[in-house]
Amino acid sequence: MRQRLTAPEITAFLNEVFPGSMERFRIEDVTPMHARVRMVFNEFQLRPGGTISGPSLMTLADTGMWVALLAMIGREPLSVTSHLAIDFLRKPEPRDVIGFATIHKIGRKLAVGDVLMYSEGEEAPCARASVTYAIPSVRLDPDVN
Amino acid sequence: MRQRLTAPEITAFLNEVFPGSMERFRIEDVTPMHARVRMVFNEFQLRPGGTISGPSLMTLADTGMWVALLAMIGREPLSVTSHLAIDFLRKPEPRDVIGFATIHKIGRKLAVGDVLMYSEGEEAPCARASVTYAIPSVRLDPDVN
Amino acid sequence: MRQRLTAPEITAFLNEVFPGSMERFRIEDVTPMHARVRMVFNEFQLRPGGTISGPSLMTLADTGMWVALLAMIGREPLSVTSHLAIDFLRKPEPRDVIGFATIHKIGRKLAVGDVLMYSEGEEAPCARASVTYAIPSVRLDPDVN
Amino acid sequence: MRQRLTAPEITAFLNEVFPGSMERFRIEDVTPMHARVRMVFNEFQLRPGGTISGPSLMTLADTGMWVALLAMIGREPLSVTSHLAIDFLRKPEPRDVIGFATIHKIGRKLAVGDVLMYSEGEEAPCARASVTYAIPSVRLDPDVN
Repeated sequence: MRQRLTAPEITAFLNEVFPGSMERFRIEDVTPMHARVRMVFNEFQLRPGGTISGPSLMTLADTGMWVALLAMIGREPLSVTSHLAIDFLRKPEPRDVIGFATIHKIGRKLAVGDVLMYSEGEEAPCARASVTYAIPSVRLDPDVN
Repeated sequence: MRQRLTAPEITAFLNEVFPGSMERFRIEDVTPMHARVRMVFNEFQLRPGGTISGPSLMTLADTGMWVALLAMIGREPLSVTSHLAIDFLRKPEPRDVIGFATIHKIGRKLAVGDVLMYSEGEEAPCARASVTYAIPSVRLDPDVN
Repeated sequence: MRQRLTAPEITAFLNEVFPGSMERFRIEDVTPMHARVRMVFNEFQLRPGGTISGPSLMTLADTGMWVALLAMIGREPLSVTSHLAIDFLRKPEPRDVIGFATIHKIGRKLAVGDVLMYSEGEEAPCARASVTYAIPSVRLDPDVN
Repeated sequence: MRQRLTAPEITAFLNEVFPGSMERFRIEDVTPMHARVRMVFNEFQLRPGGTISGPSLMTLADTGMWVALLAMIGREPLSVTSHLAIDFLRKPEPRDVIGFATIHKIGRKLAVGDVLMYSEGEEAPCARASVTYAIPSVRLDPDVN
């Protein structure tokens, strides 16, 4: 399976179909089945104790996997998250968090991948997530995208 | 294990230690190992398509489990979510979502439970979640709380 | 959605298509979206320490969900497990374990449910599991089954 | 954190405390926070259709994570699996399956890691799993091991 979209093409597509969705995110790198996405720090992500909130990390995981998936299946806004599991490993520092997404499978119905998340400059991940996307049936026709 | 806090006591405690955290939530009912928590609809929870965002549902799951746990272990702000897994089952309508949390175990290290979430008035759940909380070691002394 | 198969019909079907698969299991009760399945104790399920092995409990979770699903979709051997998550809560005693499966959704692509497992006679569960089955596309035609 | 045990030392320890547990497994490589474990093919692992059963893959995931953990915490038989989530990605062929375990965190209470599993000779994984182990409190004393 070859890559269909580059990082700038994905950013442009997401800004077009979901205006504002990429405000907090930077797509730093996309290669086949992989994406690196940065979540830019903002104070509203903080929870008591000065750490970044769980829902913010979940959003990064979801976005990272989605970017990696769009790179492979093309301009396709209809995929939806069907499952997301996250382990919170270490308190994330109040700064940017970088997510490394890896897709393990793109099937007819489902795409499955993992996202490792790191506070900028840290060697150990602050969280890991598994994400499953349901892919719209239209994709069964390989000429559609 | 007996219940230590009532719904109003939990609301008061959360407003005290995490001001603002319960703005969107109403604790509707608490019984031993169970809690029912309502997430009040607000437009900022919406995502494109008019459905309630995944991170909002995750926050409801996390809050529902936390409320059920506080009812049992008492005024204890230090428990932290270590794992959250959510299945998105049906598009949640743009209205209140009610979460029914059930705790399956409160051990020395971990508490494990499930949360079923329903758009108000619906019979089928829009999401289900499993949540694990890490419990601070101070609880090993049963006289602490 | 109405129930299509009774407990004896499911047992007969499974013995027919997967001979031996129900040797260790008894379908005790089936109602719409629910199944109760007993895993009969056998020494080969034990692991060091005298508890029932994790893979045995996973097999019970998988079987319980499958039975509940077959009751609803009918004689359909092709569904396959796509995801299984299990929390081990308490040491299961060396005796029968009973699984209570509840389906939360049967969609076109996926069926999602939970299974609570109890050592016979215990009030607290020894394990809980979430199970997702991928449903074959043939089911898109509602007249097939 | 440095590695405490080599692959042969782990094999010897497991054969000593859980005789027979490694019959089907070969520890091929252990480095800090990583382990590669081979599950040797045996016909009893097959399920109808000629694929390796889900519980067999779960056992590989559990074993792979356990080996990686023992390498780091030393001769410690008491850790128990508290959570295991597995995604079945592709039908595993009727031959050896190799599991690559990576530990993301070893904390005071929990160790969390992932295991990617490949049928021998395949480039795409047949399954991925996340595994959490509960670590006995005795480990709180760093001189114990």
